[in-house]
Amino acid sequence: MAVMKRTLFVFTLTVLAALAQSPQPPPPIISPEVHADKTVTFRFRDPNAKEVFLAREGAARISMQKDEQGVWSVTTDPLEPDFYGYSFVADGVGLIDPSNSLMKPNLLNNESEVHVPGPNSLTWEINDVPHGEVHHHFYRSAVVGDDRDYFVYTPPGYNPSAKKMYPVLYLLHGFSDDASGWSAVGRANVILDNLIAQGKAKPMIIVMTLGYGAPEIVSRTGMRDPGLRERNYTRFRDALFTEVIPQVEKEYRAVKDRNARAIAGLSMGGAESLYVGLNALDRFGWVGSFSAGGLSEDLAATFPKLDSKANSELHLLWIACGTDDRLIAANRKFREWLKSKEIRATEIETPGAHTWMVWRRNLTVFAPLLFQDGSPRPTN
Amino acid sequence: MAVMKRTLFVFTLTVLAALAQSPQPPPPIISPEVHADKTVTFRFRDPNAKEVFLAREGAARISMQKDEQGVWSVTTDPLEPDFYGYSFVADGVGLIDPSNSLMKPNLLNNESEVHVPGPNSLTWEINDVPHGEVHHHFYRSAVVGDDRDYFVYTPPGYNPSAKKMYPVLYLLHGFSDDASGWSAVGRANVILDNLIAQGKAKPMIIVMTLGYGAPEIVSRTGMRDPGLRERNYTRFRDALFTEVIPQVEKEYRAVKDRNARAIAGLSMGGAESLYVGLNALDRFGWVGSFSAGGLSEDLAATFPKLDSKANSELHLLWIACGTDDRLIAANRKFREWLKSKEIRATEIETPGAHTWMVWRRNLTVFAPLLFQDGSPRPTN
Repeated sequence: MAVMKRTLFVFTLTVLAALAQSPQPPPPIISPEVHADKTVTFRFRDPNAKEVFLAREGAARISMQKDEQGVWSVTTDPLEPDFYGYSFVADGVGLIDPSNSLMKPNLLNNESEVHVPGPNSLTWEINDVPHGEVHHHFYRSAVVGDDRDYFVYTPPGYNPSAKKMYPVLYLLHGFSDDASGWSAVGRANVILDNLIAQGKAKPMIIVMTLGYGAPEIVSRTGMRDPGLRERNYTRFRDALFTEVIPQVEKEYRAVKDRNARAIAGLSMGGAESLYVGLNALDRFGWVGSFSAGGLSEDLAATFPKLDSKANSELHLLWIACGTDDRLIAANRKFREWLKSKEIRATEIETPGAHTWMVWRRNLTVFAPLLFQDGSPRPTN
Repeated sequence: MAVMKRTLFVFTLTVLAALAQSPQPPPPIISPEVHADKTVTFRFRDPNAKEVFLAREGAARISMQKDEQGVWSVTTDPLEPDFYGYSFVADGVGLIDPSNSLMKPNLLNNESEVHVPGPNSLTWEINDVPHGEVHHHFYRSAVVGDDRDYFVYTPPGYNPSAKKMYPVLYLLHGFSDDASGWSAVGRANVILDNLIAQGKAKPMIIVMTLGYGAPEIVSRTGMRDPGLRERNYTRFRDALFTEVIPQVEKEYRAVKDRNARAIAGLSMGGAESLYVGLNALDRFGWVGSFSAGGLSEDLAATFPKLDSKANSELHLLWIACGTDDRLIAANRKFREWLKSKEIRATEIETPGAHTWMVWRRNLTVFAPLLFQDGSPRPTN
């Protein structure tokens, strides 16, 4: 320390010289600015734009106003503490916030993210509790024919050399997300750290794998091709069964038993969880869907063997959707079909639309139900 | 499969309904478009901008031209295969490419990234070789007083339950990067996978930790405060020594020996590697700096105990800088000072500026020198 105190580092010139090779920024503006009352001011410099909107996750677009420096701004009403995706739509083009380094990974829609902080009781807030780890795996998929990845959360205290074994939740992202979605945006690792520290969830491994069996589906028109949609599902299932699950169960201390395997996901991943899980009750004892999108029209053909015998095999079939989600009708229809087959499910309708705010809360409620000895049976 | 073939999934309506909650995109444009001859066309819709430039890593800005649809575009000369950061500077504001999902994590400058693919012999190309894993760790730092993270690469075949032990490279990012820089942008894991598969580098663990002892330095003015700069260094060192290294050596099969510990980094991380490493030869036997930025003016005070005895302790002192880097003069001056002290170093000057293209190549050359039994002594 004494050495350092006598030393003048000439960081300034050298680093500023390096920075000068990057674009020269205009005078910096602050965006987003979260105020004490939970209102948020967003600012965006674009002196020649004619019209700029703020597009925020779960909210209608609102107009921004330009000042004499060419900076557009708007202040929201107080927001419930959470993380919100947003972008600026300038003359019709969606742009991330150049003043904010927090970006949402997504394969079709680049967005920024703002954190409105809340109390420690919110499961997505980082608390001073033991933290698990997130492991990033890379492999060549023979099923799909590409190089791909998956993420694995191991809970606090996980020790690959110890004898303790863990149940596994396969947790699937939605259309246009990548494999990092549930950790980078959904904060699944933070949520589980908190739930485990509170004794609410059992320590578990969570596998977050790429949900595309046909990656070429990730385009603005890809979902319109029925053959592509089918290939996306079946190859996803085949990659999961023959590549990801065997790799995970070889490397991690995972219980290899249907009673210790759950599958759940959001939107496209919710439909995948239902399709894969309910057609493989020999592999999965717990199934969940959050705002499932992509449910079949011909459910009898999609689930040809599913009947009320499933009630004695499923520890949990948990089907959630926000009431402001445009997918609520399709989800209600699916639940009606289950009823017609006398298959019991836990039906969850929450406030909210097709947003990560809903899905973080879904995971917070769903994860504690998993792998509990005295877990309630699904009820209607 | 038969089930799927009989089933028509009505993905379209449900998913498009979900997408409709996101900003309505204008007709999609393709950007970047990498052509067979390695030229790249960049496109950006901004009908009302008066002036748009392409700012590409390692290149002078070039003007883009607007067509009648309001789409600005430019096509580069053929580019050497690599990954390039870039942004669009529209009326003075740097923006990432809204048509490209590949974004560079950085705490001050949001940029997109374009991949100009090259032959398998390039170490940053993903090849069909065994892959290591990247582990993301989270902890509360008592030294710095924040919640922070580090990444650990384990090489292919690493088995936490086996007896084999590995040497460790501590690899530090530059100013404005975050802890993910070396994996997400530098592709250190891909580079090591390839070098190990070719038998060129020894299997090693790589620890990529957050390089800020004083995170508040990460602002456009932070580096101008000498007290802040000093605190940034010393607390970084203290967090490394008392938190990160002990955690890594507890959890991973790391050889706890100076002969099996290396430290290297780029730009600010290069200066940190020299400062930390050369003042702790009891801990590190291998030291490298790539385009070091932030070298002290008073080197004698920074390295009070360093003298030619270091020659018998250091397996390698490797100091690299691009000849087009504005930091080349400071690096040459530092090497002259080492010569004046009769301390031997491997001096590397390469083509290139202050860019990740230089640093990927630096790591490709540097990593194979590490931990080799017959490693050459540093020479002048």
